[in-house]
Amino acid sequence: MKKINGGVTAPQGFLAAGINVGVKPGSKKKDLAVIYSVKKGIASAVYTKNKFKAPPLFVSEENLGNNEAQAIIVNSGCANACTGDQGKTDALKMTSLTASVLGIDAKDIIVASTGVIGVYLPMDKIEAGIKEIKNHLSEEGGTDASLAIMTTDTVNKEFAYEFELGGKTVRIGGMAKGSGMIHPNMATMLGFLTTDAAVSKDALKDIFKDVIDDTFNMISVDGDTSTNDMVCILANGEAGNLVIEKNTEEYLKFKDVVRKICEKMSIAIVNDGEGATKLLTIKVLNALTKDDARKAARSISTSSLVKTAFFGEDANWGRIITALGYSGAEIDPSKCDIFLGDLMMAKQGKAMVFDEDAALEILKKREIEIVCNLNIGSENAVAWTCDLSYEYIKINAEYRS
Amino acid sequence: MKKINGGVTAPQGFLAAGINVGVKPGSKKKDLAVIYSVKKGIASAVYTKNKFKAPPLFVSEENLGNNEAQAIIVNSGCANACTGDQGKTDALKMTSLTASVLGIDAKDIIVASTGVIGVYLPMDKIEAGIKEIKNHLSEEGGTDASLAIMTTDTVNKEFAYEFELGGKTVRIGGMAKGSGMIHPNMATMLGFLTTDAAVSKDALKDIFKDVIDDTFNMISVDGDTSTNDMVCILANGEAGNLVIEKNTEEYLKFKDVVRKICEKMSIAIVNDGEGATKLLTIKVLNALTKDDARKAARSISTSSLVKTAFFGEDANWGRIITALGYSGAEIDPSKCDIFLGDLMMAKQGKAMVFDEDAALEILKKREIEIVCNLNIGSENAVAWTCDLSYEYIKINAEYRS
Repeated sequence: MKKINGGVTAPQGFLAAGINVGVKPGSKKKDLAVIYSVKKGIASAVYTKNKFKAPPLFVSEENLGNNEAQAIIVNSGCANACTGDQGKTDALKMTSLTASVLGIDAKDIIVASTGVIGVYLPMDKIEAGIKEIKNHLSEEGGTDASLAIMTTDTVNKEFAYEFELGGKTVRIGGMAKGSGMIHPNMATMLGFLTTDAAVSKDALKDIFKDVIDDTFNMISVDGDTSTNDMVCILANGEAGNLVIEKNTEEYLKFKDVVRKICEKMSIAIVNDGEGATKLLTIKVLNALTKDDARKAARSISTSSLVKTAFFGEDANWGRIITALGYSGAEIDPSKCDIFLGDLMMAKQGKAMVFDEDAALEILKKREIEIVCNLNIGSENAVAWTCDLSYEYIKINAEYRS
Repeated sequence: MKKINGGVTAPQGFLAAGINVGVKPGSKKKDLAVIYSVKKGIASAVYTKNKFKAPPLFVSEENLGNNEAQAIIVNSGCANACTGDQGKTDALKMTSLTASVLGIDAKDIIVASTGVIGVYLPMDKIEAGIKEIKNHLSEEGGTDASLAIMTTDTVNKEFAYEFELGGKTVRIGGMAKGSGMIHPNMATMLGFLTTDAAVSKDALKDIFKDVIDDTFNMISVDGDTSTNDMVCILANGEAGNLVIEKNTEEYLKFKDVVRKICEKMSIAIVNDGEGATKLLTIKVLNALTKDDARKAARSISTSSLVKTAFFGEDANWGRIITALGYSGAEIDPSKCDIFLGDLMMAKQGKAMVFDEDAALEILKKREIEIVCNLNIGSENAVAWTCDLSYEYIKINAEYRS
């Protein structure tokens, strides 16, 4: 596979646009995005597990009941969450308006919103915006769409990959937004992937579920799982490859690329986490079960004490071992080895004398790896997080989500 | 019941002392405490659920196998955690040295440590200190002992209550330390209670377990459960009351006072949480089960986004409802009402128009109450936490725990 430029419009047969419609009064930021496939495709999605799931997610889930879709409409600035029946009506209206301007069925539209909770959508602006946005749709519109879904994000997050499948060139593109309320099981995080691969519904669903568990569900900025999160993929088959079916070589090859791009998107979200000054990769090795490995990696990645220690560039492995100890994962304290990069900090659960200067050199870097070898099984997991800084507090004490 | 002055030496027949032995080189802070009962008493304790439980807790748990104890020895400055066999040897040595100077059995001693993880105790200093501390034991020594267990605490936390039981005056005293790594299930938190009540082992154990679940296990500063936490109670019977047995009027009366003092100690820990500028009381009402009520209250109390919003004095009920939604508690979103103090923010899961000025007036106070009425059952729970401030980051980026 090869990384290429662009995002959701890198694959063939996708158009996109992003414009400002003024969801937040006075803001000139782009806040409405559309992704459109020239033909109806196969789609799959995962949603937040938060019980206060926002109305647009219910509409998207309903529309994706047949795993088919042709367009995606998203706004930022207002989450349309905790808005009850009115919220549902507004989300449905977003799909019907979009369907009408694109000349497709409203049932083939995925809708999402991100922003402030408990506020109704300014439907007059949304309606005018949807009518307007059609004029901006283009094969180069991926970046505008990506910019339009950003909230407290500081960096545009779009990626695209290309690979060969049975003599055909297949592409996958994606755009994502963070950057607070990020936590396993879909936290204020939106991810939209497009591909021109031809793939069966079952194959796409399986691949997407597996990959999400290892990528988007293994990142955390602040441990808060939002009401609005969704990651979805839309495949339109324009690459002309033979339809990818389950348990084939092509399936595995395609899955690898989906994993790669989802990993890149996930890491980009954490790396741009609110106030982040460090990107922390936490590897848990040789756990008894996959679930234990994930629990342990997530527990470390969500510890405020671990995250502040890394912000302070302090080789505080005691906090790592503490988070490991309360993770709920099966652990034998007398077998755990802890590494900071290549440096062993604790052996068999006990303090090691280590070179503080060498540790400081690792801690000064922006990207830091923590390895916990549990030494009781053979299952591994990786989690990603950022440090917890003054800036996180500043952003979240001042921004009403 | 009546609040009285003092702490662990308020009840009859208890002596205590706190001195500086230099556990942290150069520090003049008191760092060694002893509590001594003139006669052997009945004791009960709860310990951290962290799998990397520190060696002193293993020794205490072993010694309390018969639910009897006569003295407590505690140091701050070094947690004696992740110290393996050497740590166990050191903890045992602390009990045997204390036993020797007090002329009691080493098996009747409770031992605890708090401070940096992964560092061995400076046993020469501890040994000299234990020999010295005997000379400082007094009926007025409660405060010195309480000062000696403080780490990043900024306020001494001791409380005492007095009440009548069958014509006798009974007293309970307690001292506690926080103030980071505080989270349900015993996080870097030590609590020591003394009482001159006569009480049966079974009654004390039952009361203590129940009360801890509603108090110390319902507070959170940062969601991190430490390796060293313990809360214990030592009852010496010096008040001369008839022995309190289970399922009696006296049992309930005594339990009420134990609950009161544990609640005061717990709230004091949170109120002095690292960097705290607000004390948040989270009440969850009318949950389906007690477990649901606790889960929901804890989820809100551990949300970084909720905590930073209160630091920013922002009426951000969307973050409260979000934390409720991912708590794992059984919830019907269309039935939840959210209040900030007396002010209704959300009704039946939907945004309410509320008076922002009135909200700001509540938010400006140091003590704030949040009420979530789930309206689907009849079980309630209360959790306490503090806000998340710049100062928390500062303290934890610079302090190696």
